[in-house]
Amino acid sequence: MELGVIGLGRMGRIVVDRTLAAGHDVVAFDLDDNAVASAADAGATPADSVADLADRLGADKRIWLMVPAGKAVDATLDDLDPHLDEDDVVVDGGNSHFERSVERAEACSGTYLDCGTSGGPASAEEGFSLMVGGPEWAYEELVPVFDAVATGPDGHGRMGPSGAGHYVKMVHNGVEYALMQAYGEGFELLADGRYELDLETVARTWNNGAVIRSWLLELCEEAFMKEATADDALGDVDDYVAGGSTGTWTVKEALEQEVPVPLIYQALAERFDSRNEGRFSRRLANRLRYGFGRHEVARRED
Amino acid sequence: MELGVIGLGRMGRIVVDRTLAAGHDVVAFDLDDNAVASAADAGATPADSVADLADRLGADKRIWLMVPAGKAVDATLDDLDPHLDEDDVVVDGGNSHFERSVERAEACSGTYLDCGTSGGPASAEEGFSLMVGGPEWAYEELVPVFDAVATGPDGHGRMGPSGAGHYVKMVHNGVEYALMQAYGEGFELLADGRYELDLETVARTWNNGAVIRSWLLELCEEAFMKEATADDALGDVDDYVAGGSTGTWTVKEALEQEVPVPLIYQALAERFDSRNEGRFSRRLANRLRYGFGRHEVARRED
Repeated sequence: MELGVIGLGRMGRIVVDRTLAAGHDVVAFDLDDNAVASAADAGATPADSVADLADRLGADKRIWLMVPAGKAVDATLDDLDPHLDEDDVVVDGGNSHFERSVERAEACSGTYLDCGTSGGPASAEEGFSLMVGGPEWAYEELVPVFDAVATGPDGHGRMGPSGAGHYVKMVHNGVEYALMQAYGEGFELLADGRYELDLETVARTWNNGAVIRSWLLELCEEAFMKEATADDALGDVDDYVAGGSTGTWTVKEALEQEVPVPLIYQALAERFDSRNEGRFSRRLANRLRYGFGRHEVARRED
Repeated sequence: MELGVIGLGRMGRIVVDRTLAAGHDVVAFDLDDNAVASAADAGATPADSVADLADRLGADKRIWLMVPAGKAVDATLDDLDPHLDEDDVVVDGGNSHFERSVERAEACSGTYLDCGTSGGPASAEEGFSLMVGGPEWAYEELVPVFDAVATGPDGHGRMGPSGAGHYVKMVHNGVEYALMQAYGEGFELLADGRYELDLETVARTWNNGAVIRSWLLELCEEAFMKEATADDALGDVDDYVAGGSTGTWTVKEALEQEVPVPLIYQALAERFDSRNEGRFSRRLANRLRYGFGRHEVARRED
C-alpha cells in the first residue's frame, strides 16, 4: 500500500524506514527540506508541501502524522483538511491528550485514528508498540502499515473508539513513571546501603531470570555500564528529571475517575521535586524545628 | 561435580533437575521420603538423613539448602554442622534475612554462601537469577552449579561478602512490590476509566515493543487471558494480597539507611490494607465528617 508520512523527525523517520522495508510506498513531507531529501534518499517519494503530499496520494489517502503534540498537529490538520474526505484515514502517532484527539477526530473531514506510540527512538530496529483508537474499518485498513511500524501483528491493537489509543498511551506513561521510580528506589538503597555493590552486576543478574526483569531494567544495566565511575555508579548524571505531561494527565484523569494511583502520583512528584532547588516545605520544616525545639537553623550561604 | 541438595520442595527439586541436566551428580535429602524417592527416580542419589548425605559427599562437600527460611534452616544447619569443615561450602538458596545469613555464616563450621533466588517455580525451564554473597573462592567453586541452576553464566553473580546475596534479593523483592503495584494502578485506571477496554489486548500490545514491557507484564497478560469473565478482567480473583516479609525488611533497612523509598513503602502498605476489612482510620474519617458537617454516617449492618 501507499502511506503519506508528515513529520520526519527521529520517530517519523523510523515510520518511513520500517514502512519502506516492508515493501510499501511512502510519500514523505517535513517542513525541513533536508529531512525530506534524506527520506527520498531512503526510497520515499518527496513532497514539497502538505497539499503536494495529498495530491500525490490520490483517492483513499492513508496519512501518518508524526509531528510534535500540540499546535503542530493542529497546523498540519488545518493544511490537510481541505484535501480529505471520510474515505481518507489520518493517523496521529504523537503523544496528544486523548480529549484533544476526540475533538480532532470530530473536526476532521477524514477519518481519524489516534495512535499512542511507545518504544521511542531506541525501537527503530525492533519496532514500536502501537495503541490505536478510532473506527474499526480505518484500523483494519492501516493494519499492513501497523504490522510494519510495530514489532509485528502483536505489537499493535485497536483499543477502542476515538481517543482510546491516546488514553491507553497516557496510562502507559503513568505506569512508566512509577516503574522508573521503583527501580530508582531499589538501586538508591543498594548504592547507599550497607554493602559495596557493583550495580551493573546487580542489574545484569536481575535481568537474567529474576522476577523484576524488564526492558527498563536493561536500560538501567546499560546506564551503569556506560556511566559508572570509580566512586559513582551514575558518574556525572544529574538528579534533574525533565518531562511530566503524560504523568500529570494520568493523575488528573485518575482524580476524575476517583481511582487512587499513589505510586504514579509519587513518581510524578519526584520529578517536580527534582527541578525544585530549596523546597519551601523543607525550609519551613527546618525553621519550625527551631521554633519549638531551638534546633539550629541551617541557613543558605550568600 | 557433585552437589548435595537438602530440601526437595518445588524450588529444591528444580535445583536437582537442572543440576542433573547439566551432567553433574546430585545427592538428595528431604524430610519427606516421597520427595527423596521422586528425586532418585530423576537420577539423584537418595540420602536418608542429613548425616547420610554428608557421608556420601566425602571431602570438599558442596551442599545446597533449599528449605523454608527460618527455623528449618537453623535445624538443618544444626544437623549438618558436625560434618563440616571450612573446605566445605553450604549454599542457602532460601529467602533468609541478610543479617541472619551473616550470623549463620559466622557460626557455620563450613564456608557459607547466601544465595538470593529469584524467578520462582515458573522458572524451572529458563533458570533462576542467583544473587550470591560470601567468600570469592567458595563462589568460584560453585560456578558450575550456579551456571546450571541460573539462566546461565549471566544469571548469577557474586554481589559481595557474606549477606550481600540476601541483601540484594531483599531489595529485589521491595522493587517487585512497587512494580506490581504500579502495573496494578495503571490497569485499575483502565478498568475503571472512561473507555471499555480489553485489558488482555492492552497488555499484549504493551508487551510487544512498549517501554514498560517486562516479565511481570507478561504475567498480567496471562492473568487477564486466564481469569477474565464477561464483566471483570480478573474474574473472581479477590483483592487480598498475602506475603510482605521481604518488603517489610526492605522498608526497615531503608529507614535505617535514611534512604526514602515511598513507592516501595506504599506498595507494602497496599498489601497490609488488602487484609484489613474496615480500616479504623476510614471509620474515623467517616464519623468525623458527621462531627463537623453533620454528613450522614454510613453504618455497618449487623
